[in-house]
Amino acid sequence: MFRPQIKVLDCTIRDGGLINNHDFELRFVREVYKALSEAGVDYIELGYKNSKELFSPEEYGPWKFCEDDDIKKVIEGIESHSKISVMVDIGRVNVEDVKPAKESPVDMIRVASYVKDIDKAIAMTNHFDQKGYETTINVMAISRDQGPELLEALHQIEEESSIKTAYIVDSFGALYQETTEYLVKIFKDILKTKEVGFHGHNNQQLAFSNTIEAIIHGANYLDGTVFGIGRAAGNCTLELLIGFLKNPKFDIRPILDLISKEFIPLREKIEWGYIIPYAIAGMMNEHPRLAMALRKSEQKENYREFYNSLADTELE
Amino acid sequence: MFRPQIKVLDCTIRDGGLINNHDFELRFVREVYKALSEAGVDYIELGYKNSKELFSPEEYGPWKFCEDDDIKKVIEGIESHSKISVMVDIGRVNVEDVKPAKESPVDMIRVASYVKDIDKAIAMTNHFDQKGYETTINVMAISRDQGPELLEALHQIEEESSIKTAYIVDSFGALYQETTEYLVKIFKDILKTKEVGFHGHNNQQLAFSNTIEAIIHGANYLDGTVFGIGRAAGNCTLELLIGFLKNPKFDIRPILDLISKEFIPLREKIEWGYIIPYAIAGMMNEHPRLAMALRKSEQKENYREFYNSLADTELE
Repeated sequence: MFRPQIKVLDCTIRDGGLINNHDFELRFVREVYKALSEAGVDYIELGYKNSKELFSPEEYGPWKFCEDDDIKKVIEGIESHSKISVMVDIGRVNVEDVKPAKESPVDMIRVASYVKDIDKAIAMTNHFDQKGYETTINVMAISRDQGPELLEALHQIEEESSIKTAYIVDSFGALYQETTEYLVKIFKDILKTKEVGFHGHNNQQLAFSNTIEAIIHGANYLDGTVFGIGRAAGNCTLELLIGFLKNPKFDIRPILDLISKEFIPLREKIEWGYIIPYAIAGMMNEHPRLAMALRKSEQKENYREFYNSLADTELE
Repeated sequence: MFRPQIKVLDCTIRDGGLINNHDFELRFVREVYKALSEAGVDYIELGYKNSKELFSPEEYGPWKFCEDDDIKKVIEGIESHSKISVMVDIGRVNVEDVKPAKESPVDMIRVASYVKDIDKAIAMTNHFDQKGYETTINVMAISRDQGPELLEALHQIEEESSIKTAYIVDSFGALYQETTEYLVKIFKDILKTKEVGFHGHNNQQLAFSNTIEAIIHGANYLDGTVFGIGRAAGNCTLELLIGFLKNPKFDIRPILDLISKEFIPLREKIEWGYIIPYAIAGMMNEHPRLAMALRKSEQKENYREFYNSLADTELE
């Protein structure tokens, strides 16, 4: 029933950090790490490795920077077979600050890149690969970039990079099954020596089904987050994904406990999930930033005007 | 881009009524009817046609009975091109109480039936068809009934009934894309003279994607509800479905207004949507009744014990 090659990556702290300035307290991060380790999740992503010269530690919590010492405090004393992942954005990290893998608790570095930045992403991942990290390139905003430039970027990744996995990232929650199928097929077709991954956003309640669609067509690296936490509408929920995969190495119950104890109260304090302005942004294939601004305003439930404003933008 | 044969049926008041004893106030039902009419929805389902000899009007609101006079109060004075639908359950209606279609505001009667009751469903729909109604059979709990008895029932429907449409009803929210594809294909294959419909439940956030999957494989009758309201996890959200269908006859904006004004406040009072015990029931292919009971108890967030109790049942 199950495909042993499939790897599940939880990015609860990393993508969830986008809605609280990466300011989860250490106790909470340890609870998440412990539960995910017990659940048998393959990779746990704890945040971004950004430079403190570019972002202020007074404005952002520790998971914006993911210093090795902070990661050590998370994992200390917790039995785990899960690998640790961090994400880097192009132009936001000084690669020389990253120590060799054997001196770091980090196992994998994922580079988030738009298609236009793929040269930089390849250079960075090759650098991290040389330092001993497992690497991936996560191609963001792919629903806007399905043309020949994407194909060219994929050929370049296949020929010039040493990454293990290339991810399809549906940043806008705009993909449907058919577009997901198309993208997985072209990734698989061009990236003959790489694995394919999928990271969905849940604007249209399609993150989980698109992940299933990606599995059907051969993607083996799958992102999820606990209770779907993540920017705006959030992500594919880890618990549904674990429930779907029939691999006996996974145990859903620690994740259920974690939701009961930590995520139900957290959801009262910060907002993510099926929220109409995010759904509209997904339908329109738009970045969620305007919808996120709306949700912070007094017009937060004024959907018609928001819809019209995006529809007008489309006419420009 | 669009398939003109596709018809959208909104069952907000009918399926939503399952969580408030069908006790929506007339003002609310008129607002829903008005917005859906403006949105261009093809059918609007207002409730069940149950016998008052079997259920007490003191215990249930008017949409449990859908008397013609109550329906007339809903539609009076509102311009609409939408047809009116009601649902009947086998054994809960006296068919002789139903007037001929030309004397009633109702256009369509949908008979909800388990596979085992298909003979009764055929007899009832043929009776209503004789009275001038458009009719459907909605095959409930289909995720538990995918074997030879389903095939036999479909052959019987094709040969013996005068219905227009047979619906696949994922009562437990347990279908995935592949099972949905399988079911639509066998329905299409056997029911050569009927249309195929799809009614999803959203336990695993798959109601919308399964509806898309049903469309891809040829289903033309699609159910949705405003903001996904419906029993337990609720249904395919109408707004996402309208956003996906590119038919210019639909206008999403009246639905957005309706959510802003009516459904955001309503959701504060009654519960539906992505709630872990319903997700667990969906994963386990179980009726949501145990999860609904849990949500009314003090153990409402005790997911692990609930999961274990269902897992133990599976072992029996």
